[in-house]
Amino acid sequence: VSTRPSTRPGRAPSCRSATATPPPPPASGPRRRPRTPSWTRSAPGSTTATPPPSVCPRRAEYLSRDLPYELSPDDIYLTSGCVQAIEIMISVLAQPGANILLPRPGFPMYESRTTFSELEVRYFDLVPERGWEADLESVKAIADENTVAMLIINPSNPCGSVYSHDHLAQIAETAGELGILIIADEVYDHLAFGSKPFIPMGVFGKTVPVITLGAISKRWLVPGWRLGWIATCDPNGILKETKIDQSIQNYINITSDPATFIQGAVPQIIANTKEEYFNKILDLLRNSADLCYGKIKDIRGITCPHKPEGSMFVMAKLDLSFLDGFSDDIDFCCRLAKEESVIVLPGTALGMKDWVRITFAIDLPSLEDGLERLKSFCERHAKVKA
Amino acid sequence: VSTRPSTRPGRAPSCRSATATPPPPPASGPRRRPRTPSWTRSAPGSTTATPPPSVCPRRAEYLSRDLPYELSPDDIYLTSGCVQAIEIMISVLAQPGANILLPRPGFPMYESRTTFSELEVRYFDLVPERGWEADLESVKAIADENTVAMLIINPSNPCGSVYSHDHLAQIAETAGELGILIIADEVYDHLAFGSKPFIPMGVFGKTVPVITLGAISKRWLVPGWRLGWIATCDPNGILKETKIDQSIQNYINITSDPATFIQGAVPQIIANTKEEYFNKILDLLRNSADLCYGKIKDIRGITCPHKPEGSMFVMAKLDLSFLDGFSDDIDFCCRLAKEESVIVLPGTALGMKDWVRITFAIDLPSLEDGLERLKSFCERHAKVKA
Repeated sequence: VSTRPSTRPGRAPSCRSATATPPPPPASGPRRRPRTPSWTRSAPGSTTATPPPSVCPRRAEYLSRDLPYELSPDDIYLTSGCVQAIEIMISVLAQPGANILLPRPGFPMYESRTTFSELEVRYFDLVPERGWEADLESVKAIADENTVAMLIINPSNPCGSVYSHDHLAQIAETAGELGILIIADEVYDHLAFGSKPFIPMGVFGKTVPVITLGAISKRWLVPGWRLGWIATCDPNGILKETKIDQSIQNYINITSDPATFIQGAVPQIIANTKEEYFNKILDLLRNSADLCYGKIKDIRGITCPHKPEGSMFVMAKLDLSFLDGFSDDIDFCCRLAKEESVIVLPGTALGMKDWVRITFAIDLPSLEDGLERLKSFCERHAKVKA
Repeated sequence: VSTRPSTRPGRAPSCRSATATPPPPPASGPRRRPRTPSWTRSAPGSTTATPPPSVCPRRAEYLSRDLPYELSPDDIYLTSGCVQAIEIMISVLAQPGANILLPRPGFPMYESRTTFSELEVRYFDLVPERGWEADLESVKAIADENTVAMLIINPSNPCGSVYSHDHLAQIAETAGELGILIIADEVYDHLAFGSKPFIPMGVFGKTVPVITLGAISKRWLVPGWRLGWIATCDPNGILKETKIDQSIQNYINITSDPATFIQGAVPQIIANTKEEYFNKILDLLRNSADLCYGKIKDIRGITCPHKPEGSMFVMAKLDLSFLDGFSDDIDFCCRLAKEESVIVLPGTALGMKDWVRITFAIDLPSLEDGLERLKSFCERHAKVKA
């Protein structure tokens, strides 16, 4: 096992965003002598890509708490939510002939952005019987010399799984052997309410360069505030050496920033949120997940192979041999919506035909009501025993 | 003169974003029966691309006030500031072999995004002696069958010009003849304080399809709030016919949205801002522009061919034959910053070597102080008369 991925000189600098002309520094009008000149100060009518001074240091401190090394403010790039972090990383890694390894089931935004950027996607399976762990043999089988990265979503949307230290170590070793980066989508970071704690992929940054994507939307329950980040967890400096960090900065220079006053609130959000707040959310999610898992067990025609331990979702398999007249998961979901006003996501949208994704991040009475309806729907459409 | 551009069937549908897989509709968990089912309702942890219901209608109403036809809410796409509107439009129009016509001087973000998207750029000149009007003969000369659009920035950053009804009509006719779209960057809309009123390019939407880009940042002086829009001003429905509207929607589906609570504030921002507020801003800008223009007149070595009538900027030409030892505008600007702590943008960044862009959107005493320093800098570096 190599402990350091091949750097493949020349790869990152050929990224398209590295060749894009960065805009000139914004300039302001004449100003008073006593102030220090700064090329980064913006014109009155413009916004600047430079976040308020304390945002990146605070974010770096926050993310470093769980790592065996310190991140510097230069390792943090603020984005408009995790969606823009995905957009930036896919744009930075896309180049003719390159491919990226995505988990199946996964988050569809990755597929959309890779298709748009003409970056080839290869899928590796997550194994429901092994707590949705990545099938690392299939990762090795599909990777080749044009593979640039693999994606890990932990805690997992849509699976509700949380990876153990051992499994994360295996992933890091595999990526290291293959000489590819890891993109760690940790937008559900710390939302782990089962027996396994949340461990950031960045812990293994010395084994393989890890690029962590995150946002305040889930842990702080502020969807719509649109404040995310890219963190380069790479104490060996491989991303700097291969100029991937510069490609990220170049792309940031030509795209929209998060709203400045939300950026400005980040230091206080980090400093002033009490542990109690997070614990309360975890308790709520744990109760909902328990209820959801227990109720699904009682429904004939739907099975849930793995009890959710994190995020806000669970994957459940439809057994269409018990159910009458459904052509597939999309048909099932459409009729469920129509007949019961209950909406679940068809697995086909996530690469898992005849599965459904159910979210349990909803108040308990509504969740219970919805699952009762799901049950009566399945009973109503059960095949009559021969 | 054709009154309707060629539709070029098949062009828009081949846009890359039209082929990107849109993500599946976000789905929520089970919910109470009395509510109407909706596939657009987001999961608790997610944000939705659908703006609050009254945002687009209010924005459509607002933009329709100055148009001879009504925009519908479907004509409006909200974006994270005007920067994302630029990003989306360039991405939508980019395709192998296509080119776009940009003004020189212009706004560098267009060049950066077109380079990134591999859309070829061709420049047409703005003529300082004619109030920075577009040289439409050069537009005709550089356009060909692969030209998809031309860009107009009005009121102009960096020129400070405001186009007359006649000139806008000529632009529309030229674009119509060439069968190309007009991208109208009107982020400085209504910031016209000279003799000519601001007229939206969309007024000529019946002559040629116009795609207007805007934001609340300039008129309402809220840079950093990141709320912009794309408005399709196209009463003949050509953008729909050629599926460009669908390409815009497809791209919006795979990119980050403006923060939801800023979207939510838009109807009240539009309804409750008094005319007095806008007038006060115009008075301030008019006074600053007058001061700036007057002061520059007194400086030997810098000339300003056109008094600013709009936006927050003016272009001024360096006469290096009067000044001693400067290699170019960048050298001039760097030494001015170093010696006087006065920062102006080198014209090279805008495609205009040996020009500078000066912003006057700054309080009057600071502006006066800065221009005095610019003057003493030029005097200090004047060539001694032979």
